[in-house]
Amino acid sequence: MFFSEQEKEALYKVIYNRRDIRTFLADPIPADVILKILHAAHHGPSVGFMQPWNFILVTGEATKARLAWAADKERRALAIHYEDQRKEQFLSLKVEGIQQAPLTICVTSDPTRGGSHVLGRNSIPETDLLSTACAIQNMWLAACVEGLALGWVSFYKKNDVRDILDIPPHIDPVALLSVGYTDKYPSKPLLETANWEKRRELQELIYHEHWGSEN
Amino acid sequence: MFFSEQEKEALYKVIYNRRDIRTFLADPIPADVILKILHAAHHGPSVGFMQPWNFILVTGEATKARLAWAADKERRALAIHYEDQRKEQFLSLKVEGIQQAPLTICVTSDPTRGGSHVLGRNSIPETDLLSTACAIQNMWLAACVEGLALGWVSFYKKNDVRDILDIPPHIDPVALLSVGYTDKYPSKPLLETANWEKRRELQELIYHEHWGSEN
Repeated sequence: MFFSEQEKEALYKVIYNRRDIRTFLADPIPADVILKILHAAHHGPSVGFMQPWNFILVTGEATKARLAWAADKERRALAIHYEDQRKEQFLSLKVEGIQQAPLTICVTSDPTRGGSHVLGRNSIPETDLLSTACAIQNMWLAACVEGLALGWVSFYKKNDVRDILDIPPHIDPVALLSVGYTDKYPSKPLLETANWEKRRELQELIYHEHWGSEN
Repeated sequence: MFFSEQEKEALYKVIYNRRDIRTFLADPIPADVILKILHAAHHGPSVGFMQPWNFILVTGEATKARLAWAADKERRALAIHYEDQRKEQFLSLKVEGIQQAPLTICVTSDPTRGGSHVLGRNSIPETDLLSTACAIQNMWLAACVEGLALGWVSFYKKNDVRDILDIPPHIDPVALLSVGYTDKYPSKPLLETANWEKRRELQELIYHEHWGSEN
């Protein structure tokens, strides 16, 4: 495969500008754009080509309200584990925008997809989750070039989400993705701006030949 | 963020043409290109901005040979679970190219990165693995635009890889990625060409409002 300098730059532009968004406008998303980002997700890699994912598209206000309730319940439960200043800082973070965003996509992973002996899953059982995450990353990058904002919500009890969306017990609701347009697209990660966490130095994360070598 | 039509097309081109590669040339990879794809990985999303990943770059022939040995041992063990025609088909697949590729990147995930109460990890413990997979997908797309081939090897016992690369017991060796140039870049997934598995119809994977709705 050959890619021009312009094509390379386009990929790096989207990789470096993709952000996790919590603030959305109510504007609806054209159906063909939704299909484009799902198509990108479906062309993610999967171990043994198992394609373990499903996509539940939620636009109903009542269902979104129940998902937001599940996320908020978990947020309040998590706050109890923080103390003093960190607790106040945590409670001041906007951690989800489920009700604001016109669309929530619940991405699930089916650990039985492809049968009992999927190539690779026998060695590393979590390969279905890893594959599903790669599909989500494709969708996220596609959403970004389409001018959409996407927020990955990971505060919820999986059984709450299963109950709300009628998901069978063996299916893993890996992510709730809020999708919509926004007029507040940040240039830096929200948690960096909020002084919650800093970006690490890449060089400190690289080892040579074995773990713990000089960086 | 605004992306032109050309930039959108570039992203979809790389998403649709990214392949899992098992056949490599011996040509070395320029150091700046390796850094570019690692930089792309490091700009993947991570829950709570925990950035749980490390990258161990392996180029030594002796170490690559030991990793290839671990993968081949696992391949032979897995073959025992297949029977008759499926077994022959499995054994005929080329499942890794570790010794051929000039570089293997072991991507690890540290479940302790960021401390005991990382935002999101308290709710969904596997968020560190999901984040690491997103980083790998960024790297894979970057490798593709750089004209590199990448193969994700997921046949190994994690403790074999820990032993070979001196990885501490609590660190998860999520992936072994073979990276190099190739003169055999396939247009379709290798497992599709080998009639191992077909690509599913996207429409059959989409539900509306709740699981199991009419597609």
